[in-house]
Amino acid sequence: MILANGLGVGIKETKSGLQRKPMAITNSVSRSLQTPLKFLKRNAVVYAEKIAIVDGRRQFTYGEFGERVNRLASALRFAGIEQGDRVAILCPNTAPMLEAHFGIPLAGAAVVAINTRLSSKEIAYIVNHSGARCLLVDAELAASVRPVVGELKTVQQTINVDDHAGTSPLEGLDYESFLESGSPDPVRWRIKDEEETIAVNYTSGTTGRPKGVLYTHRGAYLNALGELLETGVRPESVYLWTLPMFHCNGWCFTWGITPMGARHIGLRKVDPGEIWRMIEQHGVTHLNGAPVVMVSLLNHPGRPKHLDRELTITIAGAPPSPTLLEQLEELGATVVHVYGLTETYGPHTVCATQSGWASLPKSQQARLRARQGVAYVATDDVRVVDEQLVDVPADGQTLGEVVMQGSNVMAGYHNDPEATARAFRGGWFHSGDVAVMHPDGYIELRDRIKDVIISGGENISSIEVEQTLYRHPAVLQVAVIGVPHEKWGETPKAFVMLKTGAEATEAELIEFCREQIAHFKCPSSVEFTALPKTSTGKIQKFVLRDKEWDGHVKHVQGGKSET
Amino acid sequence: MILANGLGVGIKETKSGLQRKPMAITNSVSRSLQTPLKFLKRNAVVYAEKIAIVDGRRQFTYGEFGERVNRLASALRFAGIEQGDRVAILCPNTAPMLEAHFGIPLAGAAVVAINTRLSSKEIAYIVNHSGARCLLVDAELAASVRPVVGELKTVQQTINVDDHAGTSPLEGLDYESFLESGSPDPVRWRIKDEEETIAVNYTSGTTGRPKGVLYTHRGAYLNALGELLETGVRPESVYLWTLPMFHCNGWCFTWGITPMGARHIGLRKVDPGEIWRMIEQHGVTHLNGAPVVMVSLLNHPGRPKHLDRELTITIAGAPPSPTLLEQLEELGATVVHVYGLTETYGPHTVCATQSGWASLPKSQQARLRARQGVAYVATDDVRVVDEQLVDVPADGQTLGEVVMQGSNVMAGYHNDPEATARAFRGGWFHSGDVAVMHPDGYIELRDRIKDVIISGGENISSIEVEQTLYRHPAVLQVAVIGVPHEKWGETPKAFVMLKTGAEATEAELIEFCREQIAHFKCPSSVEFTALPKTSTGKIQKFVLRDKEWDGHVKHVQGGKSET
Repeated sequence: MILANGLGVGIKETKSGLQRKPMAITNSVSRSLQTPLKFLKRNAVVYAEKIAIVDGRRQFTYGEFGERVNRLASALRFAGIEQGDRVAILCPNTAPMLEAHFGIPLAGAAVVAINTRLSSKEIAYIVNHSGARCLLVDAELAASVRPVVGELKTVQQTINVDDHAGTSPLEGLDYESFLESGSPDPVRWRIKDEEETIAVNYTSGTTGRPKGVLYTHRGAYLNALGELLETGVRPESVYLWTLPMFHCNGWCFTWGITPMGARHIGLRKVDPGEIWRMIEQHGVTHLNGAPVVMVSLLNHPGRPKHLDRELTITIAGAPPSPTLLEQLEELGATVVHVYGLTETYGPHTVCATQSGWASLPKSQQARLRARQGVAYVATDDVRVVDEQLVDVPADGQTLGEVVMQGSNVMAGYHNDPEATARAFRGGWFHSGDVAVMHPDGYIELRDRIKDVIISGGENISSIEVEQTLYRHPAVLQVAVIGVPHEKWGETPKAFVMLKTGAEATEAELIEFCREQIAHFKCPSSVEFTALPKTSTGKIQKFVLRDKEWDGHVKHVQGGKSET
Repeated sequence: MILANGLGVGIKETKSGLQRKPMAITNSVSRSLQTPLKFLKRNAVVYAEKIAIVDGRRQFTYGEFGERVNRLASALRFAGIEQGDRVAILCPNTAPMLEAHFGIPLAGAAVVAINTRLSSKEIAYIVNHSGARCLLVDAELAASVRPVVGELKTVQQTINVDDHAGTSPLEGLDYESFLESGSPDPVRWRIKDEEETIAVNYTSGTTGRPKGVLYTHRGAYLNALGELLETGVRPESVYLWTLPMFHCNGWCFTWGITPMGARHIGLRKVDPGEIWRMIEQHGVTHLNGAPVVMVSLLNHPGRPKHLDRELTITIAGAPPSPTLLEQLEELGATVVHVYGLTETYGPHTVCATQSGWASLPKSQQARLRARQGVAYVATDDVRVVDEQLVDVPADGQTLGEVVMQGSNVMAGYHNDPEATARAFRGGWFHSGDVAVMHPDGYIELRDRIKDVIISGGENISSIEVEQTLYRHPAVLQVAVIGVPHEKWGETPKAFVMLKTGAEATEAELIEFCREQIAHFKCPSSVEFTALPKTSTGKIQKFVLRDKEWDGHVKHVQGGKSET
């Protein structure tokens, strides 16, 4: 029996239910497409008068946010953007960057948000590889694009975002004038299938060329809702943009704050003093970031001794040390520790708190909470497996690779079927991260595959050594890598930044480690130095490694790119 | 280009993204089925040691909950239940009822949860119409089934749930023994398409035979997550089952508490004194119900003057009066006012709070919050339209029918393509509810189509008259219907229950109305009487109407069944 519904989609009643005929999935009376576009469509009406975005001296209500997004989408269409096109944007965490996350998909195109710290050549590679037909550039970043303007083969239109006085924009249209060319009226969606691409996010490509990770509307929708469930964002929440929006589309929070009608607070630059001022000024309730950002907040003289309001800090990007989690707890923050990759729309696991933990000593709690945890509610599964995809024993010791499944795993790499097939081998996404599985079902990262130190045939987790050093009161930041060793092949070396005014010697730190972990895991040498970091604040071990291995040959175990 | 993924689903990269070949939707590395089964699969592991259900003297951890559900599912399969079968259950809000909501779908079948207040004949109709092959009956309700046991044509197995001493069960297997026949090990899912049926819920059928509303796994999944977002359930929440689980599967909270790992508190009977004791004893943070339940809680002598902890009350089932909302606010509860129907998995709209309301006088706030509001975040849209599906003016006055779209609209009516086509005409689900659209985009119910009183050609909303009477301090409950009138066709009549010890005369109440609303809307007569109610606590106006209209002919405007 075929039932007609109003939009002409055939549905058939079978024994197990009403089933669509095998055809593209479209909207129907009882089935709406899963897309983040829906969030703003709703709240531009429901919260028309509520402040949606505070961005420096400007602020926009949800009604205005919706109108500006409609303007952007219709202007892009007038400018010739077609369904399936890509539009790239290079912009700090400002209102236009948020608007792009809705306006570009609303025009039918996919967002390519580019890391603002990349070199001109890297930017050109990503723009060309994605095939972006339009490029939006914040005037502050014009200098990064200017040298390669002539190399951007597919770009037909450059738009300058110039809301920040005193900078020199590229040649091209001004963003606000471009918006003026569009219409504030609701734009009809072009999306017909929730599996269409909403964004292409490029990996950092430390082991090769950056790869374009494809996000779908459905994946972004579910992950956005998943973030709300895990971090407890409510309509009255205020979210500060300490996490770059170009990084996995801000872990999908670009889309994920809007459905609750909560407030976005823009931030051009991660400056700890400025962040503390904004937390106070705007009544911030939620912020996200990598451990290095949180360390800089904790060590800033302008920090409060104890928070006088609720603040939920969601932390990921690198494994936080138990010491850091303990300090954030002492500050009075609620810490949500999550873990994921560009290939999983940002977070895929969360260290879900168990009620029994509250009665344990603080340091033990922090150790439990420093684990990466269990799969998000809104996704599917995470496992730690050997090379045959067999689960490693849940003994908290055996190393294996983290593999994932679920609606927040990427659709694939753009234009790279070989890399996609490799990443998806055996029906699971291979993270390239090495972890153990604990008896309680929580995973704990031990390393990137390529960061594991193999010394005399023994696997050493560089993270384990680093976390041991973090317990030393003088240590601010540390990175441990394997360096060449004639007898053992590799041996651990620690690169350490001390806290201002603190003192420690190489011998003292090595001895500190030997008191706590197996001697073969302890660093053979310690160098006191500043640490090289990525734009998202991750320590770039490959920079340290390149220097130490110059002239040596190192066997690389893994092939995944860091994200 | 076709990419292979591990599970052999072909995906093709097109301009707008990677797209599946047109085929049934199955799990893949980057796309997992949306089904509530996932929630318990996850939390039986993640919260294995956490109390999931407190049910009288028994309690189960999430680990035990998961094992019992696996036992139920595998026992059903051993007993011959196949994919697409239906399994019916007649049971109060106990652990087995919750287990059925996961165990039956896990076996591959759909849950048919039957209203526990129905007559034997009605139960037989639903069991037969759904084609249930298995029937679970709580011993307390055996007497309702016993007279029709011989008429249940499709039922091959009856299972008695007998965890309540002193009752006399049906002949058949005991539930706990049945569980023993199953295995606690994880059961492999049979679901292959997220559009398969997870439940069939029968409408109350006041205007005809009950209709079987088909819920899908995808719809139940999204609506369950939607409930969490709207009501703010967190992992530490405690949910008391004051709302019947048979009613829209407890507005999908049967599935919706579990993903957060929150605690279910069972409740056999809605008794206000018992509810207050349980709120205190278990630290209840959330409960749901119809306005009449809330009225009975407020008027119980055992109630606290003011709550000393957070309690979120989600209210729906009939429009709550502003007076009731004000009283709940004074009690210190957080009220979430929602509205929906069996055909929308329970709630579809929510009266989202605007920050500006806080500065208004309490009574005005209550009036704003007594409106049914805007579409849920996790669904699509709600409109108020005329017969040509054109939106009525957003003037807060023009009556129209509420129509809905979205993933929480039913897939259709079981075995009733004509009723489905009628309900879905024009591509929208027709609720049969009459409402106005306010200038701020909030809908406000005025009546069921059939409850609208047409007096001398003027439409009178019975709800408007009722809410006027609720403002009178002596009134406990009221129902207004149209009664025969020689000149005007119909005229409003009020049926009133006074508060214990309170006094008011007919003339006084009529005069009270005339001071506040147009005279033609005021009741011509008032009868002081007890009010007939449905099992979910709704006032049954049709009972009053049948009595008043006996021997008269009334034109019925609408055709939808009450839920």
